[in-house]
Amino acid sequence: MGAIVCCGLGPGDPELMSVRADREVRAAKHVAYFRKKGHPGQARRIVEGLLAKDVREYPMEYPVTTEIAFGSSEYVRLLADFYDECAEHLARLASTAKVVVLCEGDPYFYGSFMHLHARLQGRVAIEVIAGIPGMAGCWNSVGQPIALGDDVTTVLMGTLAEDELERRMRNSDALVIMKTGRNLQKVRRALASVDRLADAWLVERGTMPGERVARLMDVHEADCPYFAIVLVHGRGRRMEAAE
Amino acid sequence: MGAIVCCGLGPGDPELMSVRADREVRAAKHVAYFRKKGHPGQARRIVEGLLAKDVREYPMEYPVTTEIAFGSSEYVRLLADFYDECAEHLARLASTAKVVVLCEGDPYFYGSFMHLHARLQGRVAIEVIAGIPGMAGCWNSVGQPIALGDDVTTVLMGTLAEDELERRMRNSDALVIMKTGRNLQKVRRALASVDRLADAWLVERGTMPGERVARLMDVHEADCPYFAIVLVHGRGRRMEAAE
Repeated sequence: MGAIVCCGLGPGDPELMSVRADREVRAAKHVAYFRKKGHPGQARRIVEGLLAKDVREYPMEYPVTTEIAFGSSEYVRLLADFYDECAEHLARLASTAKVVVLCEGDPYFYGSFMHLHARLQGRVAIEVIAGIPGMAGCWNSVGQPIALGDDVTTVLMGTLAEDELERRMRNSDALVIMKTGRNLQKVRRALASVDRLADAWLVERGTMPGERVARLMDVHEADCPYFAIVLVHGRGRRMEAAE
Repeated sequence: MGAIVCCGLGPGDPELMSVRADREVRAAKHVAYFRKKGHPGQARRIVEGLLAKDVREYPMEYPVTTEIAFGSSEYVRLLADFYDECAEHLARLASTAKVVVLCEGDPYFYGSFMHLHARLQGRVAIEVIAGIPGMAGCWNSVGQPIALGDDVTTVLMGTLAEDELERRMRNSDALVIMKTGRNLQKVRRALASVDRLADAWLVERGTMPGERVARLMDVHEADCPYFAIVLVHGRGRRMEAAE
């Protein structure tokens, strides 16, 4: 009998994978992972050098969407069909073999595998191995506590509307902003409007080769960082008393 | 020359430690960790069976505070003195040897070691190894994605005032509530008041022996769980479009 083991790979440095994920990855006979067409894929890159020589690989390539408006109903349908196909394929493979699905970060925390997880429920045995979330790798790279004591920590997507970003940024001690990419200018304006821009850090490729840690203020507007997260550290509300 | 290596040990299951932390723990000649007087200590328990035979251990025991009001200025001073002493001790040890400090979860995410980190800056070399935060172990144990798509995730401490808890719970998709303990009834009332109690899970000793996963509604009011986190899952705002 087969199974699907979804391995959280952590933020990027292969040494930050869990002992259990490391073992599953090294022993895998079948690995599957998402990637953009023409790219090696972030998850696959993390395990480079760890896979067995005779491993069989199943890249799941996102459909190219340059000619379809992001967020349109057509786009949503295209992605849903893609996830349906991937789930079918994995279910077939996992009926007789163990398939290790490679996922950056922690699978249950905004992970793409969850689109398949929902579709595979009750069809095959699924194990998910927790990983260090990408954001934790990033705040580790800055080298300051992201939150302490009674701090409230809010995780926001850069894809949210600017007024919602502002409102939520105003309302939190520690901030993590993911999915920055082409939303970075909006994120920067929202932080400035609530007077937190001077405290914001940008971490690009956290814990990976080519890592960059910079104050967001010092990042040029034309700069378009990859795998970037914006962080604003909490100040430790009621810190000493909160043990 | 010595150094301090603060190892994030993850949520509790020793196999969820990172490859790097596992190696540091096994090779350690000196380990230090916080614990309550009379308790083995959560961090120490995670590494049981992994430490070298001849390791030297330095438990840092929190001062007993039963006769001092929690949050009083006397209490704050007592803790500050305690952290000062611990930092002095570690700085002395680390002047000639490598000292591995054991920390549950991820050290930079509400970790007690940060009280020492601040005090040790510039005095000794400090390396911090990221770990899987306790909350990630807990949501893994529930087996559903905590957040997806454009969900906003808010991390709250149960120590906050009830009206603040309510206000912030009303305002988030996914919720993580830490430091529940004696605040659990307050947390329950706040969740009920914003109509999220029926969706809330309590995870006690997540990924550890004796783990319990229960709907918060089903937890008896007299029940006083240890190492417990309350979770409310996001529903995946704009989920398909948010890739």
